[in-house]
Amino acid sequence: MNKITNHLPTAELQAIDAAHHLHPFTTGDELTQKGARIIASAKGIYLKDSEGEEILDAMAGLWCVNIGYGRDELADVAARQMRELPYYNTFFQTSHVPAIALAQKLAELAPGDLNHVFYANGGSDANDTNIRMVRTYWAEKGQPEKKTIISRWNAYHGSTIGGTSLGGMKGMHEQGDLPIPGIEFIEQPNWWAEGGDMDPEDFGLARARELEEKILEIGEDKVAAFIAEPIQGAGGVIVAPDSYWPEIQRICDKYEILLIADEVICGFGRTGNWFGSQTLDIRPDIMTVAKGLSSGYAPIGASIVSDEVAKVLEACEFNHGYTYSGHPVACAVALENLRILEEEGILEHVQNVAAPHLAEKWKSLEDHPMVGEAKIVGLMASIALTPNKETRASFAADAGTVGYITRECCFGNNLIMRHVGDRMIISPPLVITPEEIDILIERARKSLDEAYEKVRDQGLFVEG
Amino acid sequence: MNKITNHLPTAELQAIDAAHHLHPFTTGDELTQKGARIIASAKGIYLKDSEGEEILDAMAGLWCVNIGYGRDELADVAARQMRELPYYNTFFQTSHVPAIALAQKLAELAPGDLNHVFYANGGSDANDTNIRMVRTYWAEKGQPEKKTIISRWNAYHGSTIGGTSLGGMKGMHEQGDLPIPGIEFIEQPNWWAEGGDMDPEDFGLARARELEEKILEIGEDKVAAFIAEPIQGAGGVIVAPDSYWPEIQRICDKYEILLIADEVICGFGRTGNWFGSQTLDIRPDIMTVAKGLSSGYAPIGASIVSDEVAKVLEACEFNHGYTYSGHPVACAVALENLRILEEEGILEHVQNVAAPHLAEKWKSLEDHPMVGEAKIVGLMASIALTPNKETRASFAADAGTVGYITRECCFGNNLIMRHVGDRMIISPPLVITPEEIDILIERARKSLDEAYEKVRDQGLFVEG
Repeated sequence: MNKITNHLPTAELQAIDAAHHLHPFTTGDELTQKGARIIASAKGIYLKDSEGEEILDAMAGLWCVNIGYGRDELADVAARQMRELPYYNTFFQTSHVPAIALAQKLAELAPGDLNHVFYANGGSDANDTNIRMVRTYWAEKGQPEKKTIISRWNAYHGSTIGGTSLGGMKGMHEQGDLPIPGIEFIEQPNWWAEGGDMDPEDFGLARARELEEKILEIGEDKVAAFIAEPIQGAGGVIVAPDSYWPEIQRICDKYEILLIADEVICGFGRTGNWFGSQTLDIRPDIMTVAKGLSSGYAPIGASIVSDEVAKVLEACEFNHGYTYSGHPVACAVALENLRILEEEGILEHVQNVAAPHLAEKWKSLEDHPMVGEAKIVGLMASIALTPNKETRASFAADAGTVGYITRECCFGNNLIMRHVGDRMIISPPLVITPEEIDILIERARKSLDEAYEKVRDQGLFVEG
Repeated sequence: MNKITNHLPTAELQAIDAAHHLHPFTTGDELTQKGARIIASAKGIYLKDSEGEEILDAMAGLWCVNIGYGRDELADVAARQMRELPYYNTFFQTSHVPAIALAQKLAELAPGDLNHVFYANGGSDANDTNIRMVRTYWAEKGQPEKKTIISRWNAYHGSTIGGTSLGGMKGMHEQGDLPIPGIEFIEQPNWWAEGGDMDPEDFGLARARELEEKILEIGEDKVAAFIAEPIQGAGGVIVAPDSYWPEIQRICDKYEILLIADEVICGFGRTGNWFGSQTLDIRPDIMTVAKGLSSGYAPIGASIVSDEVAKVLEACEFNHGYTYSGHPVACAVALENLRILEEEGILEHVQNVAAPHLAEKWKSLEDHPMVGEAKIVGLMASIALTPNKETRASFAADAGTVGYITRECCFGNNLIMRHVGDRMIISPPLVITPEEIDILIERARKSLDEAYEKVRDQGLFVEG
């Protein structure tokens, strides 16, 4: 048996990494010069690197390790399933217990009549499934021209050709000649950055009504679906004004547009309920799930669809699916993860303990001279860095310059906090305790202080 | 801990499956009526279903379980890694030992200077990566218009928007308004079905030269890459005439077109070497790998790229990647799988024992009245069903009718053999012994006999 341990010195691991491993969303040459930080092990909310440093992971991996690291139960389940049936496909009129049991469990947890599960390997794949699914749905209903999907600028829906196209990240569109045809965009409900002099609720309504305008522009008989994250995650934890979602729901209902809620980040307790759609009172026809579904312990994603969508799809042969759709080990791991979330009352912990405590502490960061708004829903939160709290101004330096400096200070203080432009974001494991939240906030404040000093010293505390 | 066992009666499992599980490439309503076969466990080359039937899996799951089922070593490694570090991302200047060690191992195994690994969750994702990658490569080299990718009709490259577009399956293109722009197709080197009166080698050359014609038609300054499976898998195990690949290689070299070998099926011993590109003497710039990489025990795929491609990509920020890119547990499982393939001499077993024995037995099926050509390379093989061996005629019935009947007979004889249209295909675990091959062939012949009888009884043994 392979013994994978950190048996090599860090520098040697870094050299091999640089020689053979192409990292996502990374300038390889820069990383080669610097050397990657090697994460060796993890427990609870803490990572340990190859130098023995203990790092508080306020991003839960990549918004996914909801139950925290080091839960041996999942390793036990994975090994047990791997011994019994390590793989079988679900293509050719065959099925297996883990795929069946997980589908049943997801149908129970999902709101409304979202009772049917199409498996994928992650969120990107599941969103690719959604594109083919909604177009096939309308074609089977005799409306093949109802195929355009409306999304939002600064949305994130994955990195496949389909996921990148659905997402509203212009820097990603530029690489690969995207988006594909039939994807249209409206603006995001980001009041802090784009609300100008408007009242937040008026702004939320105005941004929602862009959906109606876009539908009328394209023609309702040509629009298949609207896709959105309940709360934009990778876009910077952008929480829409309260007026936004009811109006979006009204518009989707009025024009018979399928509503796809991308719950990849918001799902499985992140906002305090099983799904962000429940927290924000959204009634989707399709939900994309991944990440928290297995707490990241195994790669798995899915589209959970309504009775109506399933009925239409099941009457035709939907020529779609992945080798690892419903992978038995991944399904078994996900089931065990859901059991832990449920039986240990982790959602209740978020609602009653962790989220209220974090909210209070997080909001307190608004007294920092570089911090504008602090936003939080459940255990996903963001702060806007600004040189002028009153005018919500951005920095004169390129967007992300100050955010990057702040993130590096966090790294130096053994805190993983991510920056999106000049917005700092967190999404810690849901099991984080009040004591651990206090440590997180302490390290965040120290990092903000250090970053503020650097920013001033470098003459960057200037409005753009 | 969840105890996932087959504790429910089959009919109950089938009912839950029908109620909540949307199957890939399946007409759900038909499956609901029939009820899915529930696979409960597996060992070696045999599956066991919920009724206790033992089924010889001549498809190795879905072309993936190369080392066979029930290898406890992989379960041990998975559990060990899951306890130590169940997840961490490789996005933000971090790495971990499993991703590093697997990248190093793949660079060692891959031919030529294919030394750099970009991880994905499966073959579809990796091919999506390839689209964005080759377009970014040429754009970074100052040729943004060099973005069209040429593929082949009846190729299979996955089921994402990108994978479906690259693939040449027209039934898949129809669902989802595909292919995306910038994908062009040439005909496949399928002599049996499309060679007419031509000599096979002349036909192979002619089909290869369609690539040159297509490049000249589009303009070589607009073509980024050509993608092909060394041997078409899901298309029906189509083995090109010997003349084909040298000519393809010459054309790619002449016009500076990146050659992408989709090794998802051919990789990791399937053709008797580590990669199909070695068996067929192809020199790709990028290889897509998945399936056999982990023997299907964990979802993982990758693009393995040349020094030149990596050099260009590493100088820019490639805004691409998946949450589960380089998943530590999947990487650890893949590493252990490669260790077993290597240390147990499984490739040598294929080359010296299994493939020669299967080839002899497989070829012997050509004496069957319904079997035309029998083709085999390593342990992937196909037979063409025909009502006329001389003229290579197809059946009058819809393509796939006779194949489907034959597959159902195989199912009845506890043999998993797949049909693609009226071609029967196999891809058994690489560890299959000569004795097991004899059982496979015995069941295949019995199934062919039964199918032949049904086909004649139903008046279907008629040329189209």
